Amino acid sequence: MAIEIERKFLVNKNLWQPPDDGVIYRQGYIHTHNGTTVRVRVAGDQGFMTLKTKTQSLSRSEFEYSIPLHDAEEMLMIMCDRPLIEKKRYKLKIGELVWEIDEFFGDNQGLLLAEIELTSEEQTISLPPWIDKEVTEDSRYYNSNLVKNPYNNGQWNNPDSK
Amino acid sequence: MAIEIERKFLVNKNLWQPPDDGVIYRQGYIHTHNGTTVRVRVAGDQGFMTLKTKTQSLSRSEFEYSIPLHDAEEMLMIMCDRPLIEKKRYKLKIGELVWEIDEFFGDNQGLLLAEIELTSEEQTISLPPWIDKEVTEDSRYYNSNLVKNPYNNGQWNNPDSK
Repeated sequence: MAIEIERKFLVNKNLWQPPDDGVIYRQGYIHTHNGTTVRVRVAGDQGFMTLKTKTQSLSRSEFEYSIPLHDAEEMLMIMCDRPLIEKKRYKLKIGELVWEIDEFFGDNQGLLLAEIELTSEEQTISLPPWIDKEVTEDSRYYNSNLVKNPYNNGQWNNPDSK
Repeated sequence: MAIEIERKFLVNKNLWQPPDDGVIYRQGYIHTHNGTTVRVRVAGDQGFMTLKTKTQSLSRSEFEYSIPLHDAEEMLMIMCDRPLIEKKRYKLKIGELVWEIDEFFGDNQGLLLAEIELTSEEQTISLPPWIDKEVTEDSRYYNSNLVKNPYNNGQWNNPDSK
């Protein structure tokens, strides 16, 4: 079990360039009644199963297990709610910190999010120039919520949404 | 991934004797919106995480992973719905088949269930003399439902319920 502490930001598309080809992520969620997040992920050629408690402030408990790719593919197909989250993840090391930038496709096309994992809630960070506004507290940007209410569903009132 | 095909029976307490001390099982469920079963189990000193699709007839797809005991204990504590399922499991090999007999405690005290896993839905089996009636199709006896509606909640109308 790990405690996950992360902050999340919108990325300015005019200032950011992909550093490489990125890794294709496909992930799905099984929605629960008690706020626990159950996530199945295929990242490149690896499968993962992750459970997270409800977020409290910036932190939550996370349990992640590597599982056979075929199992993950099958679970995405038969168990997970639609739409699946499809994105490319880029990793960028700046100083001691690794930024993860997610470029979304499918029903969330147009969304570009940067996440940074911290070791404490008080840790200060320098923001790269391509960082736009912080959305850590905006639950619409949780990947699990991007299934229920995708970026392109018209209620988002953003320049990319159709 | 495995396909689980099982039949379930009540056990006649006057005719059945535990063959050994059994193994203590503690398990919990995270209830989902789409009928997928998410189960966390501690069996003796081992932890497991299991996902099963909705049952169709006698069969369902099952994905089970061994996880660290400490993770399983923690998930039971912070993620799983109450009450937890507490039972002793006894295994009894008769011919080629292994019967699993579950003696429930806590909110399901008094319930004694036998399960047998089959290789096909058509497989015929010989019933031991201590088998009472079949309850495979009675969803009240699913362990996940014994959380929502435990055997001793008074609505069961059984001789053991308080």
